[in-house]
Amino acid sequence: MSRMTRSMATVCLSGTLEDKLDAAAAAGFDGVEIFESDLVSSPWSPERIREHCAESGLSVEMYQPFRDFEAVGPETLARNLRRAERKFDLMQRLGTDLLLVCSSTSPEAAADDDLAAEHLRTLAEHAAERGLRIAYEALAWGRHVDTWEHSAEIVRRADHPALGLCLDSFHVLSRAQRDPEVTDPAGVARIPGEKVFFLQLADAPYLETDVLQWSRHHRLFPGQGSFALAEFTAAVLAAGYRGPLSLEVFNDVYRQAEPGRVAVDAMRSLIALEEEVGRRADGPERERVTLTAPPQAPELAGIAFAELAVDAEWGHRIARVLAAMGFAHRGEHRSKPVQLWQQGDARILLNFGAEQDTAVSAIAVETADPEASALRAEALLAPRLPRTPGPAEADLSAVAAPDGTEVFFCRTGADSTGWLSDFVLTGAALDTPTALTRLDHVALAQPFDHFDEATLFYRAVLGLAPRHDSEFAAPFGLVRHRAVTDPGGRVRLALHGTVLRRGEWAPGVPDPQHVALATDDIIASARAMRARGVPLLSIPDNYYDDLEARLDLDPALVAELRECQVLYDRDADCEFFHCHTEVLGGRVFFEVVQRTGGYAGYGAVNAPVRMAAHRAARRG
Amino acid sequence: MSRMTRSMATVCLSGTLEDKLDAAAAAGFDGVEIFESDLVSSPWSPERIREHCAESGLSVEMYQPFRDFEAVGPETLARNLRRAERKFDLMQRLGTDLLLVCSSTSPEAAADDDLAAEHLRTLAEHAAERGLRIAYEALAWGRHVDTWEHSAEIVRRADHPALGLCLDSFHVLSRAQRDPEVTDPAGVARIPGEKVFFLQLADAPYLETDVLQWSRHHRLFPGQGSFALAEFTAAVLAAGYRGPLSLEVFNDVYRQAEPGRVAVDAMRSLIALEEEVGRRADGPERERVTLTAPPQAPELAGIAFAELAVDAEWGHRIARVLAAMGFAHRGEHRSKPVQLWQQGDARILLNFGAEQDTAVSAIAVETADPEASALRAEALLAPRLPRTPGPAEADLSAVAAPDGTEVFFCRTGADSTGWLSDFVLTGAALDTPTALTRLDHVALAQPFDHFDEATLFYRAVLGLAPRHDSEFAAPFGLVRHRAVTDPGGRVRLALHGTVLRRGEWAPGVPDPQHVALATDDIIASARAMRARGVPLLSIPDNYYDDLEARLDLDPALVAELRECQVLYDRDADCEFFHCHTEVLGGRVFFEVVQRTGGYAGYGAVNAPVRMAAHRAARRG
Repeated sequence: MSRMTRSMATVCLSGTLEDKLDAAAAAGFDGVEIFESDLVSSPWSPERIREHCAESGLSVEMYQPFRDFEAVGPETLARNLRRAERKFDLMQRLGTDLLLVCSSTSPEAAADDDLAAEHLRTLAEHAAERGLRIAYEALAWGRHVDTWEHSAEIVRRADHPALGLCLDSFHVLSRAQRDPEVTDPAGVARIPGEKVFFLQLADAPYLETDVLQWSRHHRLFPGQGSFALAEFTAAVLAAGYRGPLSLEVFNDVYRQAEPGRVAVDAMRSLIALEEEVGRRADGPERERVTLTAPPQAPELAGIAFAELAVDAEWGHRIARVLAAMGFAHRGEHRSKPVQLWQQGDARILLNFGAEQDTAVSAIAVETADPEASALRAEALLAPRLPRTPGPAEADLSAVAAPDGTEVFFCRTGADSTGWLSDFVLTGAALDTPTALTRLDHVALAQPFDHFDEATLFYRAVLGLAPRHDSEFAAPFGLVRHRAVTDPGGRVRLALHGTVLRRGEWAPGVPDPQHVALATDDIIASARAMRARGVPLLSIPDNYYDDLEARLDLDPALVAELRECQVLYDRDADCEFFHCHTEVLGGRVFFEVVQRTGGYAGYGAVNAPVRMAAHRAARRG
Repeated sequence: MSRMTRSMATVCLSGTLEDKLDAAAAAGFDGVEIFESDLVSSPWSPERIREHCAESGLSVEMYQPFRDFEAVGPETLARNLRRAERKFDLMQRLGTDLLLVCSSTSPEAAADDDLAAEHLRTLAEHAAERGLRIAYEALAWGRHVDTWEHSAEIVRRADHPALGLCLDSFHVLSRAQRDPEVTDPAGVARIPGEKVFFLQLADAPYLETDVLQWSRHHRLFPGQGSFALAEFTAAVLAAGYRGPLSLEVFNDVYRQAEPGRVAVDAMRSLIALEEEVGRRADGPERERVTLTAPPQAPELAGIAFAELAVDAEWGHRIARVLAAMGFAHRGEHRSKPVQLWQQGDARILLNFGAEQDTAVSAIAVETADPEASALRAEALLAPRLPRTPGPAEADLSAVAAPDGTEVFFCRTGADSTGWLSDFVLTGAALDTPTALTRLDHVALAQPFDHFDEATLFYRAVLGLAPRHDSEFAAPFGLVRHRAVTDPGGRVRLALHGTVLRRGEWAPGVPDPQHVALATDDIIASARAMRARGVPLLSIPDNYYDDLEARLDLDPALVAELRECQVLYDRDADCEFFHCHTEVLGGRVFFEVVQRTGGYAGYGAVNAPVRMAAHRAARRG
């Protein structure tokens, strides 16, 4: 028994066909579906494409799409069969035996299942003469055939061994999401396995848009959206399907992103999907999908530290801010220009040796099994970072996240014997003069092209679940916000990025990142920080006037928030209080947060106010 | 009688409130609607905002929005009235007397028109005590009130002088587009005029998306979309409305574009809209909207010339290509390093004095009245370009288009006495060795942020109509294409740009521009050009195989197209043939086109193939 064949449609990637094949091969795909428009635009002959694929270890799994074929009048049928013969010629030159035929969207198509079956049978007969096969797919917007059940019924009536089904998770699950009483994805498990010729996989967010636009512009790789893909894939495998898992993702952003990187993201999504399918499948399918499963994600206990890359000038200024915030300068790294600052359980490293601009350069997660975490990350194609520890130093594994942040794996609870032993301690007392207790979250700005890739990375590699999706109008354009957290809420990363790539007008690109620190008494913390000279961000009076009007809040509370420049959000019985420093070094600020009653969000409603305030502070 | 008051909602623009007010004032707006989120994020007190507006010549026409007020239980009503009093305080500090109340979207709102009317009457009574007024607006997605008819009925029942309607063209026309049997925009002409307190204007493309998303992300300024805005505005004026015309445009791109420029675009849209309304209105409304009307757009007779900016190296190479294409070097400019090349009626200038990279730097349109064209352009806020003609040179007026292209105005048919007299003629014979007859069109790449601005510019300033909108998947991302043409098809500009701003992967950014030349025999032209050494673009064989299969074309025709590397499109009984040179100077190429049977498009279906071929040619 061999592992699943992993395939992708060329339409997933940007570039010319040549670019796409190289990217898919480099990411370790076994096969490709060749999209007609990619082939038509390629200067390579079908034979050369075939040869190049073979040399790159890629099989040509399918050629697609063939549209508007069935249930038409005799003249159109004759023309369509001539058209098919030309495509069969091409497929033989390409070296693939499978043609995708989509259910017709033509006004010429009759609502006549027997006629459709008869025509598809004829097509299959022609194909079989050449050793080729036809995979019939119900488009979610097909004129008459728009559910997998309907396509399966037509294939059953046509009853030809060279005719089977192509199941596309997008079409099946989007239709089911719109009309759950009409179509049932779970039923695919009862299709005769030999009739499922091909399985295409795409995820997507749930959108209220027209299904054609949804399909053509907003598909995602598995694990990046909201579809129940593992369940669906398990059902198709349960039916007896033995072909490839093939990604078919039409996405406006991926269409213009560097294809090598997108192909890696795609491969990561398949590996993670197979792992999830393995948890749901049983019997031989379970074995196949788990053959190459990565080690399970170990439990995470928290963020051991966040590291800021700083230059000398900004490093010393940020160190002064940390001191004013009540952090103690606890240690100096034995071999590198790195300072450890600490208050309560919150640890921040200032790395003066960085070549990049001021930014959150690394986070360290506490894991029950650092080696398993690192192996899992590697199995999921996270680039492992080269590390050369000094003689007495801890051998921490680290990988690079899509946004460039380094992710370190530290053993839970072993700080004094582990990474902390790399620091010469200063002996500074660990007081808590501003009552900051620990890191609440780290907010990482995501480059426009890689937001969904980042979600999948943190989800798959660290086992964090996406939560609190929001999109809001900020002063300089729309912003997406999404958190990824472990089940216990001990590791929280807040990802944010622009909805559209920005031009030159918007200030502060790339957006600032921040480290958020928890307190149990925001008013006390804010007052203490102000008294100690922390450059706290000024919030407009208009915000507090609106808060009072909008939420009917106790005026005494509002007065206190206003005095301390604290922002406020609430959610049922939970409350969230937060205040911020000014932006330091052009790119980083600190936030102090208090959560009550289990508030699990990030105060996204206040983000535009905070952004405008940062802008005003920069202008001075 | 004074001209219409021109206003805009701050939500139309990017930036902080301070940025927005400055941009609106600089573009000549008379007033603004202040959006709550802009105010809440502003460090300026309401008094300071009021003062700044007054100093900038801006009235504060309205404060908005106030949501989910009416038809609720007594406790919520009491809370909502408290909330309103706080907003009334704010409005008095801001110096505005009008509050926008949107129809409720709350599940708490009852489907009870009398209750809604009673509550709104109470609110109006409270407002009236302070000299304030309430404008009630039906949101297209209101829970119960979602048509203007319904909101008008509730206002009628409430019957209070401080309660009137806000009519928003987006809500009215989007609802009518979705449900024409439910709501009729023309009926607004019958509302008692004194009951229309405010008119908000937005255009939009027709989209199949959910109306909330459509409204929040895809609105456009009047003249940029597909709504019948002049008709609607004329109907509101016919009702007796005397308030401002106020733009309220939620648009993802404008939210992040430089606000000064967007405000100018917005003002241009209002001036052009008033002109169009003037054609439909009569009586006093007609007088008001035409008070400041620009001169009518004179008839255009064609493109007199296209100018390419070139450096010395590329200039000489492009000159060699033009010579190979059969153009004669007809003249040299008297005072500038500019060459005139001509074949048939196609004239191309090579400007060796340009500081920019190789690009289409200017086009000249032949107009029946150059002075009127220039005055119209100025009235529509087109920046007039400084020109210092030499002693014996023609005083051509020129303005800058949004993409930086210079647009010259030449008198129709006066080339020998007009601009052509600026050239010392070489005496070269004007043969037509490759049978190119004239300029067919000029294709101008549009910067991402300014595509819709460009449409409006060419529409309003030159009187060209948008046609042939398309969006297609090109090798490096989605591309928009839209032509603007005069009614006779003698001036055709093809605008294209990316749907999303691109990142670093895509080659060829900014996209190439091109000049398209017409022929009556593409095969003869292509053969002649090839024989003369023109670097024609190679088209993949795969394209011709597909063409034959797809369109069931005569194999002899396909063989000829293949031999000449000509692309093909058809449309009913019309055909389009086109071939291309390679990209020259990094940014410019030439196209040769033949249209038969009145084909009016641009072969957009072939653009991805052409783009991939240009990419392959660059790679060599």
